[in-house]
Amino acid sequence: MEKVKIIEVKRSVFENNDKDAERLRQELKERGTFLINLMSSPGSGKTTTLVQLINRLKDRYKIAVMEADIDSDVDAKKILDATGINTIQLHTGGMCHLDADMTRQGIRNLGDEKCDVIILENVGNLVCPAEFDTGAIMNVMILSVPEGDDKPLKYPLMFSICDLVIINKIDAVSFFDFDMDRCTENVKYRNKKAEIIPISAKTGEGVDRLAEYLAGRIDEWMK
Amino acid sequence: MEKVKIIEVKRSVFENNDKDAERLRQELKERGTFLINLMSSPGSGKTTTLVQLINRLKDRYKIAVMEADIDSDVDAKKILDATGINTIQLHTGGMCHLDADMTRQGIRNLGDEKCDVIILENVGNLVCPAEFDTGAIMNVMILSVPEGDDKPLKYPLMFSICDLVIINKIDAVSFFDFDMDRCTENVKYRNKKAEIIPISAKTGEGVDRLAEYLAGRIDEWMK
Repeated sequence: MEKVKIIEVKRSVFENNDKDAERLRQELKERGTFLINLMSSPGSGKTTTLVQLINRLKDRYKIAVMEADIDSDVDAKKILDATGINTIQLHTGGMCHLDADMTRQGIRNLGDEKCDVIILENVGNLVCPAEFDTGAIMNVMILSVPEGDDKPLKYPLMFSICDLVIINKIDAVSFFDFDMDRCTENVKYRNKKAEIIPISAKTGEGVDRLAEYLAGRIDEWMK
Repeated sequence: MEKVKIIEVKRSVFENNDKDAERLRQELKERGTFLINLMSSPGSGKTTTLVQLINRLKDRYKIAVMEADIDSDVDAKKILDATGINTIQLHTGGMCHLDADMTRQGIRNLGDEKCDVIILENVGNLVCPAEFDTGAIMNVMILSVPEGDDKPLKYPLMFSICDLVIINKIDAVSFFDFDMDRCTENVKYRNKKAEIIPISAKTGEGVDRLAEYLAGRIDEWMK
């Protein structure tokens, strides 16, 4: 095998919103609202997974959802129709991610009623959302089987900041060249502490375990 | 169905590199090199598609590939092993896209030998790469079947700037809720002029047609 030539091209400067995110986290602590930031590539099944999860958790917690997209409202409609919970769509005006202040604007628009859990479905993107702390209590990402088990190697920051990595579409594992052990190894290479939970949002496999894991995290935080 | 509340959150200012991209396009015209900018979500099959395409076109054109990623060199290695052509890896230092100057830095590192065709595999991301003109002669994107046929609704800019939309993984169409007619309609809603070519990079279905289409575009430009 020949050696591949590697060139480091220059990067631009990013905004820094870390302080604002800490402030939002403090506000959420004071009002007792657990904010989950859900990230993934486009089409990995964030919305379908949310529907499954919410229907298992909505009798236990008061939940609201903020759907972030550049355009369209198909996801917010899907969540609302399938779960009936308080759901809003955030349009990012072309932006590829949400920062803490954009997240706060969304929370304000959910209304005055107190929520136990707010789920932010971030813009479908494995790069930029990882760079901007939204103020969430927990970062969760979904990697779907058709995307391949090498993704932690290519998108290091996303995998390193997530507390939980959901592997979705495991019902399709025989159809694609996806090795669950190799995937686990690649995730752990980026983040030893990440919890990994395989599911199929389509068939429901693994979703009970996922719901219980999240409930455990929420209850622990609320103590 | 209840009406969904939509909130427009604010966007930041983007860099503008349009002039530089025009300059690069002029340089490429002068040296007779056709630059293709290939974009998609992570895991849609850009690299596998490239291998199939290059092996069909490399006797006809002198081709080089620039693989852009935040980290890893798995894609560049794959291309090099499978095709033997001049391939380099660009690391973007965390950046989610390439602009014209980053592209130019890559081209310089391909060496002095003249290429007929250079293919830039952009960072896997449906948002940011669409916002930065790389100076390419042709913008191509891949949408894969598992991602869903609604993606043109959610990622408007990407679909509107592409000359060619490749629909990959059509061998998996029966496995996913993907309607090719609905997808075509959604692409055309964003971009009436876009050519749409369905393929399976895994089985090779449709790739001959894709290669012929690209060759036609290259030959026309080179006249």
